[in-house]
Amino acid sequence: MSTELERLAARLSEFARVRDWERFHTPKNLAMALSGEVGELVAELQWLTPDESGDLDPATLARVRAELGDVTAYLVRLADVLGVDLVAEANTRLDVNDRRYDPELYHGSMRKAPPLDP
Amino acid sequence: MSTELERLAARLSEFARVRDWERFHTPKNLAMALSGEVGELVAELQWLTPDESGDLDPATLARVRAELGDVTAYLVRLADVLGVDLVAEANTRLDVNDRRYDPELYHGSMRKAPPLDP
Amino acid sequence: MSTELERLAARLSEFARVRDWERFHTPKNLAMALSGEVGELVAELQWLTPDESGDLDPATLARVRAELGDVTAYLVRLADVLGVDLVAEANTRLDVNDRRYDPELYHGSMRKAPPLDP
Amino acid sequence: MSTELERLAARLSEFARVRDWERFHTPKNLAMALSGEVGELVAELQWLTPDESGDLDPATLARVRAELGDVTAYLVRLADVLGVDLVAEANTRLDVNDRRYDPELYHGSMRKAPPLDP
Repeated sequence: MSTELERLAARLSEFARVRDWERFHTPKNLAMALSGEVGELVAELQWLTPDESGDLDPATLARVRAELGDVTAYLVRLADVLGVDLVAEANTRLDVNDRRYDPELYHGSMRKAPPLDP
Repeated sequence: MSTELERLAARLSEFARVRDWERFHTPKNLAMALSGEVGELVAELQWLTPDESGDLDPATLARVRAELGDVTAYLVRLADVLGVDLVAEANTRLDVNDRRYDPELYHGSMRKAPPLDP
Repeated sequence: MSTELERLAARLSEFARVRDWERFHTPKNLAMALSGEVGELVAELQWLTPDESGDLDPATLARVRAELGDVTAYLVRLADVLGVDLVAEANTRLDVNDRRYDPELYHGSMRKAPPLDP
Repeated sequence: MSTELERLAARLSEFARVRDWERFHTPKNLAMALSGEVGELVAELQWLTPDESGDLDPATLARVRAELGDVTAYLVRLADVLGVDLVAEANTRLDVNDRRYDPELYHGSMRKAPPLDP
């Protein structure tokens, strides 16, 4: 049984295939497309205070949702082209950061931890 | 039964909670963190040709995987804080683009389609 | 007499030439490099409040200065490769925005103005 | 006698002052705005090959010029608010990279050099 991300990846792959867009979907190009969409997302929040960004008016929230959809689509497509499992990689990073950022030592503090010993 | 993205979101939420980092995790700040991680991902591919980016050496691929993990973590955390379903939004965007980019008219072409009539 | 940006562009051009890096310095690649450096800049400020970002401690300011130097270097190199005069283009954009954002109508407001009539 | 960047910074400062936008122009917000504009620039080049990006058609070049103008405006405004001299910082970075990347050792190679000894 496939996950929701696998189904989304399959839909994106088919979307590209029927348009003969696969040759444009190199990791380099998709990373740029992802970057462009994240830029649009950031632009929606740039003049808001951090508090205001957590309480968006409906029109802004609708635009933010659309940008999040675009970001997700390019991220999932990029991972599919590279053969990477996004959720597995995120969990691996969380495993690292769980050891790197001791909950007591970094309580309420966003300072950067030194890299872990190998 | 929760999806893999819901489980990842729950883990990220708990990760922030036990460190008292929730007040840092505003949408504005998380969008910046996402943007920073995407910048690191783009930097890994910047000097490669599009073809080379599809055939990465193991060391580069390992760094790309780690960046994809970081990007996913911040994206899922941001969506959770905003109460947005990423897969649903991506599918909504695909619905729009399915209508906007006729497969025959845009076959092999990456030119931009005009916005859809409302 | 050349300007300081022309002298910087010439130094960057020579820096690439003596290393045989000119073939890597396509606009596409340089735009990615610029994006990566801006990501590093954004990352320095991501957890700060807007007020804190205007009153940086010396260590953070030193890192921000270095990132601004990297951003400037890639931006000037990209413009040189494209044959674009950055200051002239910025002034052209300011001319547009001067007409687009009436000082009284947009006093204290960051809402987006409609595009100008052509 | 002021440089062209100083005159642009002064014009941007006045542009913000007459609209009462100075309180929005924190380094955090301006870094986001810069990031958004760089995203738009990257998006213009995302589907082109590196070679094509060096030979833009007039319509794309016009959009790229406009994006470069926006990027420059936000970068110069950000540096002005922080009291940073962009050209001096870029030259400092070039001094570092001149020592870090030996022209013979890195001839034709974009591999990353180790950090310099302090």
